[in-house]
Amino acid sequence: MKKILVLGAGRSATALIDYLLQHASEDDYGVIVADAQPDLAHQKVGGHWRGQGVGLDVADVPRRRALIEACDVVVSLLPPTLHVEVARDCLSLNRHLVTASYISEELRALDGEARARGLVFMNELGLDPGLDHMSAIQRIRHIQQRGGRIVAFYSATGGLVAPESDDNPWHYKFSWNPRNVVLAGQGMAQYLEDGRLKLVPYHRLFSQYRLIHVPGLGAWEVYANRDSLKYREIYGLQQAKTLFRGTIRHRGFCDAWHAIVQLGLTEANFTIPNSKEMTYAGLVEALLGQNASEGGLRKAVARLLNLELEGPVMRQLEWLGLFEERPIGIESASPALALEQLLLEKWAMHPHDRDMIIMQHLFEYDFQGQHRRLTATLVAKGDDRTHTAMARLVGWPAGIFARKLLLGAAAPPGVSTPTHPEVYEPLLRELERMGVRFTEEEEICSQ
Amino acid sequence: MKKILVLGAGRSATALIDYLLQHASEDDYGVIVADAQPDLAHQKVGGHWRGQGVGLDVADVPRRRALIEACDVVVSLLPPTLHVEVARDCLSLNRHLVTASYISEELRALDGEARARGLVFMNELGLDPGLDHMSAIQRIRHIQQRGGRIVAFYSATGGLVAPESDDNPWHYKFSWNPRNVVLAGQGMAQYLEDGRLKLVPYHRLFSQYRLIHVPGLGAWEVYANRDSLKYREIYGLQQAKTLFRGTIRHRGFCDAWHAIVQLGLTEANFTIPNSKEMTYAGLVEALLGQNASEGGLRKAVARLLNLELEGPVMRQLEWLGLFEERPIGIESASPALALEQLLLEKWAMHPHDRDMIIMQHLFEYDFQGQHRRLTATLVAKGDDRTHTAMARLVGWPAGIFARKLLLGAAAPPGVSTPTHPEVYEPLLRELERMGVRFTEEEEICSQ
Repeated sequence: MKKILVLGAGRSATALIDYLLQHASEDDYGVIVADAQPDLAHQKVGGHWRGQGVGLDVADVPRRRALIEACDVVVSLLPPTLHVEVARDCLSLNRHLVTASYISEELRALDGEARARGLVFMNELGLDPGLDHMSAIQRIRHIQQRGGRIVAFYSATGGLVAPESDDNPWHYKFSWNPRNVVLAGQGMAQYLEDGRLKLVPYHRLFSQYRLIHVPGLGAWEVYANRDSLKYREIYGLQQAKTLFRGTIRHRGFCDAWHAIVQLGLTEANFTIPNSKEMTYAGLVEALLGQNASEGGLRKAVARLLNLELEGPVMRQLEWLGLFEERPIGIESASPALALEQLLLEKWAMHPHDRDMIIMQHLFEYDFQGQHRRLTATLVAKGDDRTHTAMARLVGWPAGIFARKLLLGAAAPPGVSTPTHPEVYEPLLRELERMGVRFTEEEEICSQ
Repeated sequence: MKKILVLGAGRSATALIDYLLQHASEDDYGVIVADAQPDLAHQKVGGHWRGQGVGLDVADVPRRRALIEACDVVVSLLPPTLHVEVARDCLSLNRHLVTASYISEELRALDGEARARGLVFMNELGLDPGLDHMSAIQRIRHIQQRGGRIVAFYSATGGLVAPESDDNPWHYKFSWNPRNVVLAGQGMAQYLEDGRLKLVPYHRLFSQYRLIHVPGLGAWEVYANRDSLKYREIYGLQQAKTLFRGTIRHRGFCDAWHAIVQLGLTEANFTIPNSKEMTYAGLVEALLGQNASEGGLRKAVARLLNLELEGPVMRQLEWLGLFEERPIGIESASPALALEQLLLEKWAMHPHDRDMIIMQHLFEYDFQGQHRRLTATLVAKGDDRTHTAMARLVGWPAGIFARKLLLGAAAPPGVSTPTHPEVYEPLLRELERMGVRFTEEEEICSQ
């Protein structure tokens, strides 16, 4: 019996393992799930007779190699820095490898050897990176093959809370890594618009959001991702004059997060003196600097940030507890860590909350003398806090590809990403079968 | 004949070497100046018969050790990371060491051994750190010894251009390291005011300046230094409710620099695509992001930053050449590097320009039931671009101390800074003799 090895049984593994086990009998394969915590591995397999949960200390090389050798395809959901170790084992043991991560320099260096051995080392098989690229490239190729010339490409993705579970003034809950949300956008964002380079420094990023329209869900805010330009060649969009990738948030989020950034609460490289005893109100007061806090903290904040005292942003800040005399309670915390700790509580999903992924691509292209606009939108919702749309869309692409590879599907050998139609077309078809569907709208614009 | 070895003949060495040579005959000692460029070493000695300029590759250990062994006191003006190598030589060869730098962890680790051998390894003998600490501590001790209780301490220093050489709308010219000026303040500034911690994130630092009054020179702007709290114990100011250290700039500087920061021009960790061909106007336009540049670049900048189109800040930005179609001309430049390149030209001192140092300490203290305020102000001007006040105030303290040490003055053994009266009192007296004098004003305030 053929076998798939899944390394790592954490949050992103659930949907992937479930998918693999669902098809194990019909396709006659087994699934071994290995994790540092054997209990977690057992739990994720859930007693399925085609599955097996085992404990694995990844640093235990002989055991790791024995597990890899016992299987035909390896899916690594380990921290990205560990992929290359696994990849070296796969090379010497002649096994295929699947990851959902970006390709590191070290991993890329193994490309020649993997190619020579006919091994497939496929990466970026998640949501972002993953589904975003596959669904965009598919449409770009399609437009170009019909003879269209793409002049603008806008793409945005957001991990959000579904409207039916949206019960807070930020309209946001964590469905993924909280730290990434707190530190999002630090540095400089760059994109291309009408042939011109645009740069956005972090302290202005959240004040320069755009609006997109999502069918059935109204207007949403989008702030620019760090680097939209690096996808130019991968997408085959060297001719496009506009290239913009961004992150989707609910209306009202960006203005309030801009206030958080202006206050200095996302600063991660500074240690607050006496942070264990300092309160959130104390921290905010300290961040007001010499801006006198006469008239109370709220008034001083509103004055500094030029906000309406009773307006929505002040309400959002207040709702977080930023003006409360409650100790931060963490030793040597940075403002970002103190903030994260508050958000972990405030933006936590309740057990029956549903998350929601929105992904939207907008292509403007010239076709037979017309200027056309194609919008492709995906809205996916989870069932509850455990069965999230996020976990599914991150886990399914790697699961689908690993299964197809095991069953003998063609794929380019070497270290690569799913940019070839023979890889992404069957994968997107399977996702569609599972309910992951983009709705498309096309309009012909004035010339 | 006793000898002093000066390692490094760069910009900060001139005034120091001149001082040492001036007193070499009366005190009967010699001065050896060693630099990687022998010509520079010769030039700085200037043919003085008590001096000798020699070439030295610091990595050439035997030659370095031979030079150190041939002298009695070593002054290291090498890059701070090299001090510890020299210090190890001094330990094994039984020589005293003098630097103008902060104490590194590696250097501090040699304290016990230096103490055991009775060797003096004295550091922070420059302007800042150096004269700022010595002149502050001297007055703090004096107030405390009379029974005064210091409640507030404000201290500010600025390397500026003298009014008679001030001919640009920024009222600033470089008298020291330009890169430090461009990157000044990045991170978070912290100080204490009225017993409360104050934190200032970088993107608000230059909008929160204070004003000080300098006798005879009017009002000047002061922005907060990175960490005013670390001097609390060194200064013996554990009781003070206000501790603020800052940097002095001319009126009008901070508002304009705030605009530079808001634009994103001080970002050092981002590489501008195609920076060699991109123009300054192009860079500024890119930094406007989606803020349309209709109506021209200047109008768009004024609109984004909320500036008067014909106001002083716009004039300052324009004077720098930020709106000119002139290529940056540097490969892979960051915005900060592109800016530095402009400033190097615009803020260059002309040969006969005079620089100016302002240093001001303000002590508020309770004394015999009165609330008093003591202001001590130093204004020092240079002669021209070579003989700057900056080079003198950075170089003289180390020179004076090295000479006194050679002549047998008492100093605490081990790795230390000039916080002991027996070190700073004679040093400050000598500086005063050389014209470096603080003027003091004391007032009794309402109670």
